[in-house]
Order: sequence, then C-alpha cells, then structure tokens
Amino acid sequence: MSKIKVGVAGYGVIGQRLADGVALQGDMELVGIADLAPTLSIRALKEKGMPYNLYLVDGADKSAFDALDIPVSGTFEDLIDKVDIMLDSSPGGVGMKNKALYEAKGVKAIFQGGKKNSVADVFFHGYANYEKGVDKDYLKLTSCNTTGLIRSVDCLDRAYGIEKVAITIIRRVADPGDYHRGLTNALQMDKAPSHQAVDLMTIMPHIEATGILVHTPVTHGHIITVVATGKQKITKEMALEAFQKHPRIRVVRIDDGFKGNASLFRYARDLGNPRGDMYEIGLWEDSIVESGNDIMYAINIPQESVTIPETMDGIRAACGMQKDGAEGTAKTNEYLKIGLFK
Amino acid sequence: MSKIKVGVAGYGVIGQRLADGVALQGDMELVGIADLAPTLSIRALKEKGMPYNLYLVDGADKSAFDALDIPVSGTFEDLIDKVDIMLDSSPGGVGMKNKALYEAKGVKAIFQGGKKNSVADVFFHGYANYEKGVDKDYLKLTSCNTTGLIRSVDCLDRAYGIEKVAITIIRRVADPGDYHRGLTNALQMDKAPSHQAVDLMTIMPHIEATGILVHTPVTHGHIITVVATGKQKITKEMALEAFQKHPRIRVVRIDDGFKGNASLFRYARDLGNPRGDMYEIGLWEDSIVESGNDIMYAINIPQESVTIPETMDGIRAACGMQKDGAEGTAKTNEYLKIGLFK
Amino acid sequence: MSKIKVGVAGYGVIGQRLADGVALQGDMELVGIADLAPTLSIRALKEKGMPYNLYLVDGADKSAFDALDIPVSGTFEDLIDKVDIMLDSSPGGVGMKNKALYEAKGVKAIFQGGKKNSVADVFFHGYANYEKGVDKDYLKLTSCNTTGLIRSVDCLDRAYGIEKVAITIIRRVADPGDYHRGLTNALQMDKAPSHQAVDLMTIMPHIEATGILVHTPVTHGHIITVVATGKQKITKEMALEAFQKHPRIRVVRIDDGFKGNASLFRYARDLGNPRGDMYEIGLWEDSIVESGNDIMYAINIPQESVTIPETMDGIRAACGMQKDGAEGTAKTNEYLKIGLFK
Amino acid sequence: MSKIKVGVAGYGVIGQRLADGVALQGDMELVGIADLAPTLSIRALKEKGMPYNLYLVDGADKSAFDALDIPVSGTFEDLIDKVDIMLDSSPGGVGMKNKALYEAKGVKAIFQGGKKNSVADVFFHGYANYEKGVDKDYLKLTSCNTTGLIRSVDCLDRAYGIEKVAITIIRRVADPGDYHRGLTNALQMDKAPSHQAVDLMTIMPHIEATGILVHTPVTHGHIITVVATGKQKITKEMALEAFQKHPRIRVVRIDDGFKGNASLFRYARDLGNPRGDMYEIGLWEDSIVESGNDIMYAINIPQESVTIPETMDGIRAACGMQKDGAEGTAKTNEYLKIGLFK
Repeated sequence: MSKIKVGVAGYGVIGQRLADGVALQGDMELVGIADLAPTLSIRALKEKGMPYNLYLVDGADKSAFDALDIPVSGTFEDLIDKVDIMLDSSPGGVGMKNKALYEAKGVKAIFQGGKKNSVADVFFHGYANYEKGVDKDYLKLTSCNTTGLIRSVDCLDRAYGIEKVAITIIRRVADPGDYHRGLTNALQMDKAPSHQAVDLMTIMPHIEATGILVHTPVTHGHIITVVATGKQKITKEMALEAFQKHPRIRVVRIDDGFKGNASLFRYARDLGNPRGDMYEIGLWEDSIVESGNDIMYAINIPQESVTIPETMDGIRAACGMQKDGAEGTAKTNEYLKIGLFK
Repeated sequence: MSKIKVGVAGYGVIGQRLADGVALQGDMELVGIADLAPTLSIRALKEKGMPYNLYLVDGADKSAFDALDIPVSGTFEDLIDKVDIMLDSSPGGVGMKNKALYEAKGVKAIFQGGKKNSVADVFFHGYANYEKGVDKDYLKLTSCNTTGLIRSVDCLDRAYGIEKVAITIIRRVADPGDYHRGLTNALQMDKAPSHQAVDLMTIMPHIEATGILVHTPVTHGHIITVVATGKQKITKEMALEAFQKHPRIRVVRIDDGFKGNASLFRYARDLGNPRGDMYEIGLWEDSIVESGNDIMYAINIPQESVTIPETMDGIRAACGMQKDGAEGTAKTNEYLKIGLFK
Repeated sequence: MSKIKVGVAGYGVIGQRLADGVALQGDMELVGIADLAPTLSIRALKEKGMPYNLYLVDGADKSAFDALDIPVSGTFEDLIDKVDIMLDSSPGGVGMKNKALYEAKGVKAIFQGGKKNSVADVFFHGYANYEKGVDKDYLKLTSCNTTGLIRSVDCLDRAYGIEKVAITIIRRVADPGDYHRGLTNALQMDKAPSHQAVDLMTIMPHIEATGILVHTPVTHGHIITVVATGKQKITKEMALEAFQKHPRIRVVRIDDGFKGNASLFRYARDLGNPRGDMYEIGLWEDSIVESGNDIMYAINIPQESVTIPETMDGIRAACGMQKDGAEGTAKTNEYLKIGLFK
Repeated sequence: MSKIKVGVAGYGVIGQRLADGVALQGDMELVGIADLAPTLSIRALKEKGMPYNLYLVDGADKSAFDALDIPVSGTFEDLIDKVDIMLDSSPGGVGMKNKALYEAKGVKAIFQGGKKNSVADVFFHGYANYEKGVDKDYLKLTSCNTTGLIRSVDCLDRAYGIEKVAITIIRRVADPGDYHRGLTNALQMDKAPSHQAVDLMTIMPHIEATGILVHTPVTHGHIITVVATGKQKITKEMALEAFQKHPRIRVVRIDDGFKGNASLFRYARDLGNPRGDMYEIGLWEDSIVESGNDIMYAINIPQESVTIPETMDGIRAACGMQKDGAEGTAKTNEYLKIGLFK
C-alpha cells in the first residue's frame, strides 16, 4: 500500500506538531505545510534547512519570503492537489472557508478543535469513537482539554462503566511565547457548564457531564479534576489499574518529583522530546480519592501536543488505513513511540 | 454588661485584621496587640499614630522599637493579665507554647487555623457549630478555605440537607506582599484528600467529603468548586435562593463585571473597605450547574479577611455573650456591617 | 474665595482616584463624575451610598442605571455647565472629542497621560514646570511612570544639576482587576527609546534622556532604574539627602522589610490608605550606587495613584489658585496629607 | 591526540546540559555523571536508555536506584579516577568539599558560578580571559547573567574600548519545573551593586561597573539592560555591527516576532534544539539607543544553557587543548553548531 499523502494548513503551535507527527508515521508522507507569513515558526523552519515544503495561502506576500531566502513550493491549491487529506489548524474562521476548497478538490480533511462542529461529519476522538470516523471525509478533533479528559473517562468507562462526571478545569491561559492573551495575578471564570463537559457528552452520549472552567496564569499544561460516578463502585485500586494500562496516560507521583504541571514539562525536556512535548496526559496517583460511590482524580493536559496522536488516529480512520480503533490507535502509538515506558 | 476585653497575639496578615475586627465590635474592647519585631505592619501602626497598644512577646528586642520611637505598653504577660480572651494568630509552633501561658492565667483563647486541632477544646465555625463553642475556654478556627467552604455547604445543608461534597481548591499561593512562598508559572499538586475536606467532616460529621487542592500563582483569593450531593434533588434555583439569603455570601455575576477573583478584590478596594478586604465569600451565579442529582458551584475565598467574622463569633460563643448561634452571628454581622448590601 | 468647582469625566481606575483627591481638597468642590455604563466602579459607588453625583455621557443607556436604582444627576453637558474645570480620564480617543465640548462651554480641562500632547496647551508636571501651567486652559498630565520619574530627576536637578539620564522601566503590565491586558510568564520588550524618556525631555528640555521599557507580569507598581549624570559628581549621600527632603518621595530600605513593589502596596493597605493607594513614589536607599560620575537608583511607581497629586497641582495652576509652584504643590500635599511621615 | 576524558558532578539543570555539551565535542569523551538520588533528571536518563554512565556520590542510597532498575557504574571516586577533568555543578557548599577529592587525585576541575571565587585559581570567561585559564587546574565559571553580559561588553570593548557600564538585571526568578523559589505578582529588589557588576570588574578590571538587580516572576530568560560608556563615541550602527559578528550573540528584532524572552524560548523549541535550549544570548536591535556618548541596549540570557559554551572553552583552556582563545572558542562553537545561522 502506498503511503497516505498529508498536508498541513497553518504552521502555528498545533500545525508544527501535526507536521512533525505525520513525518514520524511510517505509512504516511508529509507533502508540505501552508501558511501566510514568515512567522517565527517559519523562520525556524528555514533555519533548520526547510525539512518540510512550504506552500503559501491566498493573501500571502511572496516577496516577504523571498527577502528571507525562504523557498516556496507553490500555492495552497497546489498543496491540496497533491494530498489525500489535509490537517487544518488554520485560525478561527478560516477552516470553514478552506473546507470549500477541500470539497471542490475532493480531498478529505481533519479540523482542529477551535472550529464549529458543523464543519465536519464527525466530532472525533481516537479512543472514544474511532469507528464513527472510518472512511468519513471530514472529521473535527476534540480540543486539547476534551481530548485528554476523554482519554481518562473512556478508560474508566470501558473498564467499569461510567454514568456521570463533574469536572473542574484549571486552564493554562497562554502557551509559552504568547503575549496577547495572558492573565496576570488573576483567576478568571467562564460561565458554566464548560464546553468541554458539553463536548464530552457529544462524543459519549451515554454519560452525563458538567463542569466549571477557571483560567490560571500559567503556560505549561491544564489540570483537570474529575469526579466520576461509576455504574459500579470504583475503588482507587480499580481506577489505578485501568489508568496504568492506558498507553496515552502516564501515571505519576508527587513523591517521585512530579509536583505539578511544570514537572511534566521539565521531564519531557529532559527526555529529549522535541520541543519538550509530551503526547501522554499525566495522571497523579496521589490525587485519586474515593468519594462515596464516586471516584475523583486529577490529570495534566499538555495543551500543545496532546491532540497530535488522536489526529493521527483520525487520518487512519478517515482514510480507512485501519478500520478498527484498537488497531488504528496502536499504529499511531507505535510510530509516535507512545507507551514504551510502561 | 461591661465590654469583653480582647488581646491579639501576632500582628501579621491575620492579626491586624483581627484587631481591626475587634475594634469594630461595640461590645468588645481591644486591649492591645503583641508582637516580636518592628515589622512593616508595626511600622504602619506607628505611622498611623498607634491606635492600638503594643506589647512585646518574649525575645523581642525593645531597643529596636525605641530606635523607631514606637511606644511599648508592656510585656505579653501584661497584656494577658488585662484581657478576658486572647486571639492567637502567632506563627506555627508558637500557639501551643502560648496556650500554657493562657491556661496559667486563666484566660480564654481562640487559635487561628494553622495550629493542630489538639490546641483547642472545639474546632469552631460560627455558622456550622456555634453552640459547641459556647462557654468553652479554647477554640480553634477553621482555616480560610474551610471557613468559606463551610459557609456555603452549611447554607445548603440547612436549607435542603447535604450528604456528600467533592471539592477542588484552586489555591492562591501567597498574599500580596509575600516573597517567600511564591510560585512562578506552575500549578502545584497537594496529595489528596485535601485537609479542607477532612476538616469539613470534623465540623460537619454527617457529611462525607473529599477533595483535591492545586496551588496557583495568584494572590487575590482562592477559588473552590464544590460538587454537592443533596438529600433531595437541589436545583439551581433552590441553591441560588439559599445562597442569596446568607449574609456572608455575596452572589455575583460574570456579566456584571465580576470576572474572577481579582474583580472581588478590586470591588472591595472601590468600596473603600480597609485594606481592600471583604468579609463575604463571593459565589458566582453563572457557575451554578446541576449534575444529575448533584449541584455544582464555585466560590471565592478572600484569604486575608474571611475568618475575621467567624473569629468574632468565636469570642461571642466562648465568652457566652450570645448563647445562640443565630444571635451571635447576627451581632457580629451588625458590627462588621456584613450583609447590608442585600 | 469660593471653592473651585471640579468635574471628572470617566470613573475608572484613575477617575475614581481623581474624584477622591478633589474631594479632599479644602478649596475645591467635586461637582460630580460622568461615565457611560454601570461598571463595577459605579456599582461600588452605589453600594457606598452615592457620595458623588453621577452624570451620564452621550450614548449611556439610562435604563441600565435605573434598573439598579442608581440615581443619575444629569447629562455630561449638565456637569460641564456647573464646573470651572474638568479632569478628563476618559478612554483613549474620547478626550479629544470631549475637548470640543469643554471649549464650546468655556471650561478648562486637564487630560490624563494617555492622550496626545496636542490635546493641551501645556504638558504638565507639578514640580518640574508648574509655572507653565498657570492660568492655562488645557493641561495634559504626564503618565504615571513619567510623573514619578520626573519627581526624582527634578529633585536631583534642583539640588545639583542633571545633564543626562538613561532609564530602564520594569513596567507592571496590568492593574489589579484587569483581565484583558495581562502577560503570563513573559518579559515583553518595547522599542527603544521609551516614550517616558522622550516625555521627560519635553518637560525638562535641558536634560538628555533615553531608556528601555520591559513589561513584566505583575500588578503592584512599576520599578524604574535611573542612571543620572550630574553637572557635578553626585555622591550617594548627596542623592539621599535630596530624596529624603522631597515630600512625594518615600525613601525605604530592604532591611526594613520593603523587599519590592508588593511591600509598598501592602504597607499602604496596612496604613489604612483608601484602596491601598500611595501618593508617594518609593525609592530604595539600598539601590543608590555611584557609577563613575553618574548616580544610579531605583524607584517604585504606584501606577494607580501617583498622578493624583500632580493633577491637583494642575488644577491649582490652571485656575490660578496659586501662581507659584512651591505654594501650589504644598497646598496639594497639605490636603492629601503627603509627607507627614517625614 | 587522544580525547580528553570528562566527568560531570551533579546532574541537575546545569549538569545535564554540561553532559550533553561534552558529548557533542568531537575531541572529548564524557566518562560519566555523578549524582545522589533518583531525581526526575535521573529517571529521564533511565527512560532514555542510560546514554551516560551513572556514578553515585557519597551518601547515595544505591537500593533506591536498584528499585528502579537504574544501572550504576560505580562510585564518585571511581569516576574521578577515570577522568582528566571534572565539571562540578553540585549544589552550594558541596563543590568546595569535592575539590579536596579532585586535588587528592590530581584531577582538574571547573566549578559553576554558584561557588565562592576562592574555590578556583581563575575566575574564567571564554571570551574575556581565556588565556588566563590555559593549563590551570581549577577554574570557576562566571554565573549565567555574568557570562552573557560579558559576551556583549567584551564584544564592544574589543571593537571600540569600554570604560564603564551600568546594568539593570531583570532576573527570572525560577527555572521551568521549580516550585521552591518562585515569586508571585511581585518585583523583588536586591541590594545594589549587583554581584554581576562586581564579577564583571573581576574579569575585566579595566572597566568600572555597577548595577541593580530586580527579580521578576518569569522562568524563560533574564533580560539585562546595559548603559555602556565607550572610550570613543559608539553609535548604534557601530554597536550593531560588532554584535552581529559575534557567534554567541543572536541579534533579533521585535518586528520579526521576537517580542520578549518567551519568544526566544519558543524559537529554540521550534528549532528543535534539545530541551528548547539556546546557547546564544539574544540582543534586540530595536533596543539599541544612544545616550549622549553612551550606548544602551538589552540582552536576553537563557539561564539554563548560556554557560555551557564557556564551560567547554574552560575545558579547552585548562587542558591546554587550544592555547589561544580565538581557537578555543572557535572549536567549541564548531562542535556546538553555534553561529551557523549567521
């Protein structure tokens, strides 16, 4: 079978990582990436020697790239013409516009979490509803928080059955390198219920979910606490056993030095992971407590990288590379070297 | 009836506010405050013209005060000799040592939350167990988070009955003016269950409680989310109705401009409250959501000032000024002008 | 002499403090304040019992105020008709528009630092160029950083003569209660030279100035380091002697507990100052060092309140209340109780 | 010539990077690293497959390593016996104790900046005084801020002559992953002059230096502003020309997207640099301004990695690998791929 040809629209925080993720898949080929301006990310690509081909979207000023000796391989349409599927991580409203192009050229696409659900046929999560995405043309990935949250809830649900969750999202407000959306010495409230709880119910309609989101002035990872009501009583030991088996969940302990979200970022840097990224969510063993018949625990969401594996799953589903979720996610894990530490 | 004579040991963040609180009670007399060194707080007291008499604890270097022309009214023992009750907000291990002095001189005392429960006869909260403190010699106040948390849980419990709570404490890590215990760009985990959940069960043994605490790098107020299971189904309307009646709960809305914890601090400053303090906890109407039979909501804890009213309640209980909790708390509220905005 | 009648346009962070400042001047009368919407500041005014009369600017929805039982005394034009001088702390572009109204009605005005210099006849600082503002119709105040910076440079200049300054502004990025302009875990550069250095040269044209500004994620006060070149060698002792005499400079020491900007905020709260404000700039004695023939030192700028005294000076100058700067600033200091601690 | 054998004592933030740096030098061999406990860094080394041999220092509990299946290659003394030179990045007081061991075994050593100058024969900087370190036994590296600062001052000094500098250090208070030394919403002052200014004078005794240091609550890089007085007038163009030629200075512009310290961190991550590290200091072209005869500019110090190149220089000097500074630093740059982007 020939390799699936993939393009990436928007080479920002997520787009860069999508490109890197595709480049690691032995059965995919990264045809190129598309962007609008010579951002820092594009300049870094240039300084690295252009490992990926660059295409320019409509409205780009090619002379700005020429002035920096950044080679350009063609237009956005040129890129679309060469691929089987596009990963669209373009900003806010652009994805919807792009979709018309993808449709016109008969190319599949996966949109990142920021867009409206209506952009896609299926609202997708690699573990929770892989099969729904098989052979579909347009998928929308869950957002970073929802992706990580569902990993943990789906894990318990498959093992023991879950009826209800109430979540508290302690949200990192900006990424490292952001200056425009920071928060200084304040915790900011969102109106409840948080969209992540609503999104979880869309993906897992048999579970009732609600939640409160609070923005905090940090950059290295969201923390979510989950109060989950099982169909049966779930003990700490039962929860721990299930979590430890999940390839995309890294169970950590405060006593080992994992004191908070910044420890996981530092650990990923020390591991030599590119950009200090981690594909797994962290889950604190010391946070798991029983509350009557409920189980409560806390997870860490590495917001920049957590959706990459599930997006690779999405390519596998949409392109029919693996028809079965277990096979599809296992293939992604193999190429991204996820879960090897277990 | 003559006024109850009160002294304050430790004139730090809490001690200053206790002194101010006592000074506002029409039926109490603040005899003086005791401290060890000419801290910024003592220097401010001097610059204000010494509205409170200063006594020096053992180990204080009087010449340091003399050099700054700060008048000293006597020793710590002198202060104890003149009062009916001491409010002890001295640092960590000191309270236990002070208790021996109080006992030797037959003086009652109320200890702030940092100490061990064993320091006192009763672990006290003005609303939840006032009667247990009546005529007792030694009370220990709940900590700031527990004090505010119990206000809200007790409020629902009295109205509708509560069986169980699961809390997430998004803890401010330092007070304005602190340099020694900050946190920079990190969310730090504590081992679960948090002590606040355990303390709630000590005060309200009929409720099962657990919780997770996460430290965040902010200074203006903790935020706690509460998932509460009622004995009956509690709707959002029912919860709101109960909260709005509580004098020490200020129901606020994001749409009105109360976007987070810093809004409540700013509002208190704009109100002209001394130090920008607020005695009430904030509770976001927009955060209240139903989760099956549970109700979930978020509160703001102004950590520097929230325990002051309950400590005044404690004086009333311990000294038998009011034997009934409703009367005692109402008297405190009257003198502190709490709940007038309702 | 009858009292000078003053109005305030814009009741935000600065406007509230301008109103409070005017209310404290024994020879002025605060006629009222004007704003557009029932912000938190207006709600706090209401909860305090409307100590100031409220007028509504064009575009305000009176029904929103009525719904909250907030009494309205008239329109913006009504307010202007009743005053001798307006203090304009309205947002960005609005001041220029307001000026047309003031001119049409023959009312003087003082604009806060955010506006263009062209809005006014004189760019004003109470200590550095009071006389230029005497009997003028339209003054523009220096911004918070420039106001505090000039206090210290003018102080040295009057004592010993200053030729040149190079400043580094470590800028607080938001005020307490702000959510929209924060910064998280980043230091952000502005292009040099900073406008404060340029503004200093406009006010003090005999001094050459340049500087670099760096934004930092804190809320309680800017810190500026100044490298000043004297016409003669200025020793640490000479600098300190001059600074200690200045009523609007508070010389502090790290060893006394003034460890940074947050200490000054905490101290002002402990002093019982409304809103925890301080009119003086802080200047660290321990920061003063000689560098060859230059002198270097660090000051703290309480951004919310530092311009209030110089604005009161501006009223005195523009309205000819005192024709002499020493008399004008002394009167302001007397009513604001500035420098009493010296 | 056989490779120089190098060991690293202390595998923390700096030690890890020293080990990585040595491993990249074609003419050196990293024999191993030594540490005390299975920290996160050691656990990450294990998860990476133990690319470096681990030796245990006195007091280490070997069973703790065995329990985690972490292979141990011997004792600290075993390591010292096998090397020509040790890089000592052990905590505070330990370096002095270690030195006795190094002396006893006749092994050279380079100590990191935290220790007392008396630990070493020479206080060393690769560019400013390489020759002083040649064939010496014990060198002490300048601290991170001083290392980067001297790069820029030495650069101007060699080109045009420098007489005097006045610096303002806007210091990052913690590293990513630190929880114990943070700062929250505060700028903290150090007593002036800062040690970095004093250290600069030790290394470059012909220059007069002073400075003020302010701690800020961020983790990604210090920013230093420098006011430098040349022996001749140095224009912006002259300064820029010199800076652009320096291999270890990266001249950046705000307009290109380098808005602050976090941009440089993000850029290094995007470059794929291990841990998101950068060996160069950043220098903002937009910050360079003339101040009379002085020149002023701002630099960024990547505190975790900036001293690695100069430490490699130190090995070259101490071991006599290159007797000439230009050759030594060029060799380091070649192996670390520094300056290739120019």
